[in-house]
Amino acid sequence: MVDRIESNSTESSPLLVVGSVAFDNVITPYGEKEHILGGAASYCSLAASYYARVRMVGVIGNDFGEEHLDRLRARGIDLEGVRKDDSGPTFFWKGKYHENFNRRDTLDIQLNVFENFRPDLPNSYKDSAFVLLGNIHPALQMHVLDQLRGDPFVLADTIDLWIEIERNALLDLIQKVSLFVINDTEAEELTNENNIILAGQKLRQMGPQSVIIKKGEHGAILFHEDGMFALPAFPVTDLRDPTGAGDSFAGALMGRLASRNRFDFSAIKEAMIYATCTASLTVEAFGCDRLESAGVEAIKERAQSLQSLISID
Amino acid sequence: MVDRIESNSTESSPLLVVGSVAFDNVITPYGEKEHILGGAASYCSLAASYYARVRMVGVIGNDFGEEHLDRLRARGIDLEGVRKDDSGPTFFWKGKYHENFNRRDTLDIQLNVFENFRPDLPNSYKDSAFVLLGNIHPALQMHVLDQLRGDPFVLADTIDLWIEIERNALLDLIQKVSLFVINDTEAEELTNENNIILAGQKLRQMGPQSVIIKKGEHGAILFHEDGMFALPAFPVTDLRDPTGAGDSFAGALMGRLASRNRFDFSAIKEAMIYATCTASLTVEAFGCDRLESAGVEAIKERAQSLQSLISID
Repeated sequence: MVDRIESNSTESSPLLVVGSVAFDNVITPYGEKEHILGGAASYCSLAASYYARVRMVGVIGNDFGEEHLDRLRARGIDLEGVRKDDSGPTFFWKGKYHENFNRRDTLDIQLNVFENFRPDLPNSYKDSAFVLLGNIHPALQMHVLDQLRGDPFVLADTIDLWIEIERNALLDLIQKVSLFVINDTEAEELTNENNIILAGQKLRQMGPQSVIIKKGEHGAILFHEDGMFALPAFPVTDLRDPTGAGDSFAGALMGRLASRNRFDFSAIKEAMIYATCTASLTVEAFGCDRLESAGVEAIKERAQSLQSLISID
Repeated sequence: MVDRIESNSTESSPLLVVGSVAFDNVITPYGEKEHILGGAASYCSLAASYYARVRMVGVIGNDFGEEHLDRLRARGIDLEGVRKDDSGPTFFWKGKYHENFNRRDTLDIQLNVFENFRPDLPNSYKDSAFVLLGNIHPALQMHVLDQLRGDPFVLADTIDLWIEIERNALLDLIQKVSLFVINDTEAEELTNENNIILAGQKLRQMGPQSVIIKKGEHGAILFHEDGMFALPAFPVTDLRDPTGAGDSFAGALMGRLASRNRFDFSAIKEAMIYATCTASLTVEAFGCDRLESAGVEAIKERAQSLQSLISID
């Protein structure tokens, strides 16, 4: 039985996660690690697994051993949607963070089997009521939406690449999602606004019910029809590797909502607390290591600290 | 009778403000204004005047007309401590903000009569229980402390110049203050830390009871023996001139504390709400214009909005 944070809901939903699975080489001021488990789907799924049952969709290559699948299985993640493509290796990314972690350079990208990735859902996944679309090509994100039955609550993430080369496909997509998550510089790029508040308001007018703009160490802001909510980051003093912070945030956020089977303003705010704390654990070690080993008690403790940090009483 | 925000305290204290009075030429992407009222003492005093009776100490030159003094008098500010030095003009600063307001260049500084400024307190000011030391030379800040009777609650602000050329005098001073306020880059410079949380903790170990690190559009963090408190900025969409934002923050913060005659953790947190909202008004127009004309209702309305913005309920 996988340990999960209790939701006090009798109607917990599973969460569908779609995204990349990768091996990463990561260089930081603290050192270098090679061939570590990465990719948005991995981080999102592991983070979400502390809250909800996770259905994962992705593609892995011929170099992806059972030991890595076992790490995901150990967190109770349903891997029926993870396809093994023996024609080549897994998606590979190599990046370097500079002093202060303010900037990162991508040194190498090899798409490998990810180049032909097409997220076809197993039948058993098509009724998912909560769906997290990782930052893959907007047309692939749309392809997932097309297969879903009912009226799911959908979070979509993106990256600057799609804003630059697939703006129209991205604009089509965000009209159809419930919650669009994007970082501050990307939000400004997509809206041509240089004020984060105006950018968030403009993004909401583009279609999604809600928007969250992530500001890294400065926290995140939710724009919702019922109001705005600003949350500072958890005060991390031991930053080691920021890779996967945004994916962990999105995964925990959607995991928490799915586990409560709620997505109203108040529920999203509460889930942002857990999302922030889960992401703060991820960045304290290379790759998924700290996220994977954190345990529910560490997350609950941080959630309590974060609530104190923002309490005016 | 000057309009003030009610404090529900029967023991409101006056606030002593010491700092520069200046004329500024300000260039922003929105335009340019010449010879406008500025200086830390002006912004601090005007901001504080919405909360408490203000005693102001500074020096003005032979070009400082009654119309400017009248602006301060209109907000009920006690000018007994403002000395007129007819030997030259008032302190002058000229600065230019770049696109996005991320960077500002000082184009001209003329100290003028401020060069010989020595903050000698009128006798009637020496019993002040709340004292705001604007960002003047740390030796002058210390000179103010030496004249005070009793055990006042003292806030000190500083600027990067003193960190660079008067580090030891500054370190002597901050040992003696109750609340040290500094912006994020200066905090990192003074502590040699590149993490804002570690910088804040280290600053507290240097002597002050509390520390507030200001992060501009990302809000502010309080480090106090009873805990930490992180507050986002007020969501400003109409930024016009950031000059005086930090001074308005400090002025309103201390004005609020003086008006409640309290300086415990909870009182400082509550005062930060008002400080943030008051500063948000300042930056919506050039110079002191918006700050001066804001009125208590606008401040109270923003304080309520900011509390909603951070509420998880």
